[in-house]
Amino acid sequence: MSVHLAKGMRDILPGELRKRRSMIERIQHVFESFGFEPLQTPAVERIETLMGKYGDEGNKLIFRILARGKAGEQGKADSALRYDLTVPLARVVAMNPQIPLPFKRYQIQPVWRADRPQRGRFREFYQCDVDVVGTENGLAEAECIAIVHQALLALGFAEFKIRLNDRRILRAMVSEIGALDREVDILVAIDKLDKIGEKGVRENLGEQGFSSEQIDRLFEMLNNGGIPNVETEVSNLESIQQMAHSLGVDPSRVCIDYTLARGLDYYTGPVFETVLTDDNIGSVSGGGRYDGLIGMFGKKQVPAVGVSLGLERLITIMEERGMLTDTEGQADVWVTVFNSEYQVNSLEIAQILRKGGFRTLVSMKAGKLGKQFKKAHAAGVRWVIVCGPDDLSSGTVQVKDLQSGSQASVSLSKLVESMQ
Amino acid sequence: MSVHLAKGMRDILPGELRKRRSMIERIQHVFESFGFEPLQTPAVERIETLMGKYGDEGNKLIFRILARGKAGEQGKADSALRYDLTVPLARVVAMNPQIPLPFKRYQIQPVWRADRPQRGRFREFYQCDVDVVGTENGLAEAECIAIVHQALLALGFAEFKIRLNDRRILRAMVSEIGALDREVDILVAIDKLDKIGEKGVRENLGEQGFSSEQIDRLFEMLNNGGIPNVETEVSNLESIQQMAHSLGVDPSRVCIDYTLARGLDYYTGPVFETVLTDDNIGSVSGGGRYDGLIGMFGKKQVPAVGVSLGLERLITIMEERGMLTDTEGQADVWVTVFNSEYQVNSLEIAQILRKGGFRTLVSMKAGKLGKQFKKAHAAGVRWVIVCGPDDLSSGTVQVKDLQSGSQASVSLSKLVESMQ
Repeated sequence: MSVHLAKGMRDILPGELRKRRSMIERIQHVFESFGFEPLQTPAVERIETLMGKYGDEGNKLIFRILARGKAGEQGKADSALRYDLTVPLARVVAMNPQIPLPFKRYQIQPVWRADRPQRGRFREFYQCDVDVVGTENGLAEAECIAIVHQALLALGFAEFKIRLNDRRILRAMVSEIGALDREVDILVAIDKLDKIGEKGVRENLGEQGFSSEQIDRLFEMLNNGGIPNVETEVSNLESIQQMAHSLGVDPSRVCIDYTLARGLDYYTGPVFETVLTDDNIGSVSGGGRYDGLIGMFGKKQVPAVGVSLGLERLITIMEERGMLTDTEGQADVWVTVFNSEYQVNSLEIAQILRKGGFRTLVSMKAGKLGKQFKKAHAAGVRWVIVCGPDDLSSGTVQVKDLQSGSQASVSLSKLVESMQ
Repeated sequence: MSVHLAKGMRDILPGELRKRRSMIERIQHVFESFGFEPLQTPAVERIETLMGKYGDEGNKLIFRILARGKAGEQGKADSALRYDLTVPLARVVAMNPQIPLPFKRYQIQPVWRADRPQRGRFREFYQCDVDVVGTENGLAEAECIAIVHQALLALGFAEFKIRLNDRRILRAMVSEIGALDREVDILVAIDKLDKIGEKGVRENLGEQGFSSEQIDRLFEMLNNGGIPNVETEVSNLESIQQMAHSLGVDPSRVCIDYTLARGLDYYTGPVFETVLTDDNIGSVSGGGRYDGLIGMFGKKQVPAVGVSLGLERLITIMEERGMLTDTEGQADVWVTVFNSEYQVNSLEIAQILRKGGFRTLVSMKAGKLGKQFKKAHAAGVRWVIVCGPDDLSSGTVQVKDLQSGSQASVSLSKLVESMQ
């Protein structure tokens, strides 16, 4: 009988899971230091809640679930798997008017998308979102930026840059060249600057029928500023930048950049994006203000700012760079068993060690010590305890430190103490 | 526009989530102290992997997922949501021959069942399983029992009893009364002893056509033992009990009980179940040896022992008894903002506090202090910081301790220290 995972799915085996957990814990710690609270929403949402929220492409990629039918029959698909964490947040806010605003929540949960599987991309993957719901204060943007900054530092990244812009500044440029009806085309083109450079974008816009005067004027503003009627937006960005500095963000790591065109129809104000400057993997975090979205299920608009950390991408980079190690391993100590008659002694010793705070394994098979040591090595423990009849009759055990290679005979009453 | 959760689903809001997390952490700590390793499997499995594994009822309750079809079309259901954690474990073991045996894993993840929703029962709920795969050593059973014992203690339970039996002993009783062809009927009846008592079970068996001689003989064995040909099994149970004691299990909390008929077609050897003796909620944990199941996807039998903690049931009981409290709350400190001009000072103070290890909120709205204090109270912080122009010009802040009601003027350089 052959057995497989479902397409695009994967298991997270213990070693990898411990690494992911320790990484996620560090991130959570940063979120919580800013008073963000955890939220969990169900994997399954009503199909009406999700459909139409992610465009045509999204509608295709949503995993639909069949209603419970009668035996053998298939009901119709009336629910679906969570596609992101933003729509569920909007639903939670609409359904829970008792939550005090601003609501500062983070959410780290898997989402599911029926993408064509590719190397390193899965149909189940974790998203990591931080949002401030219910305030127009630019402090919300500053906290999102500061959180990304501290989280990346906590993960061990040093070379990164947070770029900052405002959707309304981009729109003013589009307006200035008299092309408001073609805003999306222009933003899509600008978004390619990183990949194809100014020359490429100019050609692209030319091919789309924009005049060279329009293109020149656009790049003048993109490169040198001087955009008309955006004083408010620019001073707002500067104020956000200033607040971010007060929140510990290194000034050299955050800059206003009018070419940042992130998020085409989602964001309504400031936008930000973080790239690793010593890698060309693309952005590892992005976010901004999206005042239209959270209110989608309610009667009134709800201002909101959010940022996503690209968890899976960060894990990939950290793995490649050796920044993720399974420091804990399966256990700290392995207690060998001399023979079945002496198993009870090994169990009691293990229990002493557990009480002392050591994660402790006991051989499930007595017999040759060599084999037991081999298993202990494979489990990645630091210490192996040997307790034969001679040791036990004198109230001692042999403690072998695999790290230093040293071995010592230690009295049982001093065992825990000797291993500190 | 009205908005709802999908049927049988729920959100876990921050306060509740913190309580669940702290509870799960305590349990994980016990598991890891015995060297059990975490595993995560995907929510989505191939439909062939799940169908037929849970009986007719299970087949009906499995949530089936549609394959990605062309736009607008529905493909057929080729995958499904995880229904338990045991079948995925069997799949993982079959697919990963490199994992050293015995494989000691725990898994705490949601499962999905299309049950008719009832009060307090959801279609997405967490299971918490611990299994030892790949050993026939009774130490595996003893560790499972010890883990349940320590986990319940760690959660604050003191009044509970772990009952222990062996499926083969039950079978020997059935054989002794010449009813091997009706084993299931008898086990189902015995399983009702807790609810309907000996009298009820006797009547039930009588109605099913068993003779009074058969019923008398059965209860003689259930109550007094003396079952023929089970010396090996009984001494195995005694040995497990002895090992559990060595692993810290209070002898008064574990007993051999021939009436325990847990698990009809699943278990192949020892079985165990834990009930709270100061509650009649039913079992909070159950498990046993199931040597036939883990090998289902492979070529050879793989011995295994596992135990489940009834996480959702335990949470319900702990909530009812007030054993679960959100001790952490949203944050530790709230920094007020005197007015927008002084916001930057509040941000810098907040940053000092965060560096000092305090989870810190800053008012998103300056203005009346009374309102800010009200929000701070609602957030459950212990301390509120007030920093007006007078304070700041003298390099101090006002620290109000909401717990003691005291207020003090503290120099900024001593702030963190003063709050230890």
